[in-house]
Amino acid sequence: MNIDSFFFERTLELAARGRGRTSPNPMVGAVLVKDGRIIAEGCHRRHGDLHAEAAALEAAGSEAGGAELYCSLEPCSYRSPEKLQPPCTERIIAAGVRHVHIGQPDPNPKVSGRGVLALREVGIGVSLSEENEAFWRFNDAFNTRMVLSRPFVHLKCAMSLDGRIAAAGGDSRWISDESARRVGHRFRSERDAIAVGIGTVLADDPELSTRLVEGHSPRPVVFDSSLKIPLESRLVRERGDELIVLAVPSEDVTENFFDVKHRLEQRGVRVLYAEPDSTGKADLSSALDLLYAQGIGSLLVEGGSGLLTSFLKHRLYDRLSAFVAPVLLGSGVEAVGDLGITRAGDGLAFEGVNWFRIGDQQLFDAYRSGWLEELRSNFTVQEAAYVHGTC
Amino acid sequence: MNIDSFFFERTLELAARGRGRTSPNPMVGAVLVKDGRIIAEGCHRRHGDLHAEAAALEAAGSEAGGAELYCSLEPCSYRSPEKLQPPCTERIIAAGVRHVHIGQPDPNPKVSGRGVLALREVGIGVSLSEENEAFWRFNDAFNTRMVLSRPFVHLKCAMSLDGRIAAAGGDSRWISDESARRVGHRFRSERDAIAVGIGTVLADDPELSTRLVEGHSPRPVVFDSSLKIPLESRLVRERGDELIVLAVPSEDVTENFFDVKHRLEQRGVRVLYAEPDSTGKADLSSALDLLYAQGIGSLLVEGGSGLLTSFLKHRLYDRLSAFVAPVLLGSGVEAVGDLGITRAGDGLAFEGVNWFRIGDQQLFDAYRSGWLEELRSNFTVQEAAYVHGTC
Repeated sequence: MNIDSFFFERTLELAARGRGRTSPNPMVGAVLVKDGRIIAEGCHRRHGDLHAEAAALEAAGSEAGGAELYCSLEPCSYRSPEKLQPPCTERIIAAGVRHVHIGQPDPNPKVSGRGVLALREVGIGVSLSEENEAFWRFNDAFNTRMVLSRPFVHLKCAMSLDGRIAAAGGDSRWISDESARRVGHRFRSERDAIAVGIGTVLADDPELSTRLVEGHSPRPVVFDSSLKIPLESRLVRERGDELIVLAVPSEDVTENFFDVKHRLEQRGVRVLYAEPDSTGKADLSSALDLLYAQGIGSLLVEGGSGLLTSFLKHRLYDRLSAFVAPVLLGSGVEAVGDLGITRAGDGLAFEGVNWFRIGDQQLFDAYRSGWLEELRSNFTVQEAAYVHGTC
Repeated sequence: MNIDSFFFERTLELAARGRGRTSPNPMVGAVLVKDGRIIAEGCHRRHGDLHAEAAALEAAGSEAGGAELYCSLEPCSYRSPEKLQPPCTERIIAAGVRHVHIGQPDPNPKVSGRGVLALREVGIGVSLSEENEAFWRFNDAFNTRMVLSRPFVHLKCAMSLDGRIAAAGGDSRWISDESARRVGHRFRSERDAIAVGIGTVLADDPELSTRLVEGHSPRPVVFDSSLKIPLESRLVRERGDELIVLAVPSEDVTENFFDVKHRLEQRGVRVLYAEPDSTGKADLSSALDLLYAQGIGSLLVEGGSGLLTSFLKHRLYDRLSAFVAPVLLGSGVEAVGDLGITRAGDGLAFEGVNWFRIGDQQLFDAYRSGWLEELRSNFTVQEAAYVHGTC
């Protein structure tokens, strides 16, 4: 590992301190280095707080003069009414920083190179990390939202070694244990919303909370074409104000549909109409647009099998986290249903594959093959700031 | 880790040097320790060679006097016409070893405590490792065969993340890569025989070799109730002399059956008759007895799905090694079919669970829950040598 990688890795460790608290901002970390030693560190702790670069500069005080700054993301360079902090570039310049090392360009169209240019304009050296996969993945949701203007879609499931999410009798108890569920709740706390199909609501009456970890509880979203969600379900009773229900009114919709819709809305539920797909269910692409318009920049899709399979089949997913338990069921509910794939070579592939051991289970955590390339190729550097990786 | 664990771990590292070459003997390693330092090491390199203890003593020469000996398995204490080496206990005594630390008692009914007693008789101290799971698992096949008098059954498969061993079109290419196949061949080289169903032979015409690793090629076994195996298949053509075919002659067996049997036998194939189960296929328990009678002490079952599922369903397996590839197929051939399980809590559970990363794949490697307890409770220490773990 070269010295740059060492400092960059530290910026990500610091950035992670804001996990689940910075949305809609990205997580960012920064270190100030002088004579090869870290003299100050900073991170963006939560939305509204100091930016990482500013926190590090503040910690360093007058020592920042002549130092090098490593930041996981390009420093911001703009002011806007809804932005709570002044541009970091101004602070960096004022502090007399000598050189800035950047993990990843900021895909926010308001920055995307302008931070780099602002620094260069006053003679500050700027270099960009050449191996920046880790940074793109670290803020996967922020990056996806900024570049593709749609919610980041993160699929999550817990299954047996042979790919079942429930036994033939329907129950899924014991497939994953408490330690896996805690990680699952951490995933939840990092996303703006959690989506489930109506089947899951009717079978499990989930609360979709993050009670096992610190952090915010994301908005619940239920895919429920014909509004079957019970008014007495936990989601309606306890989280009605936050709940979004995606319905698909068909042509032969009954009086009852509108009656239920009315009662849901009385309880604060937001009922949205998605376009139908060829089977009469919500077209997922249009559903994602609706959610994006509601300010949802990232979505954790937890099941059931039907909803997971639909997102997979339509290639509308960015990341998959699957807990695999050391148990065989042999029959029951398959995690993934028919994808229309007939040749093994055509299977859905992944990149950035991580496997983590959690108790006796294994967490498979990876991105859709091509995800990073899609982001990079759709990312427009608005200025010629990033030619050849350094500038 | 205490100092005993350190030396015991080294005995297993040494023992592993005989992997795939010691059958029907176990793999054994030994170290001689004096003043807290290893002064000599030994292992049983291959069937017929020096035993590990003798190799270590030979390496130490006169230095062995007063040393402590750590061995992964209880030293042998008997002579017999088919045994190629003299008893290790005699050598240990002659060398003047002060104390012997034993990883695991030898389940061979000819030893099982007699080695310990022979040493104690002349005043040598003997202690037994208290945490000996690792030793029982290390020689899993030897231990199972000695205690249960049947072949060790090791199931192996390669599947997609969603539990498919082949795509809907039937092909399984790309599900596991070369690095996983190499590990698979290592498993093969450790076993006495490899079993597949006739469906696998007809679909893939496998050679069931160990070409990717050093070591012996185990005998091929085909479960083929009605003798459908083609005379021109690779197994018959290239490995006829070693091949065992398990047939189940039904009442309405045709002339052709006996004709094929005759032709197979002309090519050196051993055709055995297994008892039928309720579906007319080979009763697996009787099949294992037949194989055991042929000198097969361990069996790697590689598929297809039907054969794997039968072994699982009848709980006639000891270990499962499943390669899980980072790909989703969504349909196709399930690795594990119906096991008659309806509740998640009744799923087949495992113990000694290991997960190994191999490329982007994961190898799940574990024992049937209860396997170790079954061995221990069926293991008869013939003398009162192991009371309270030390003696």
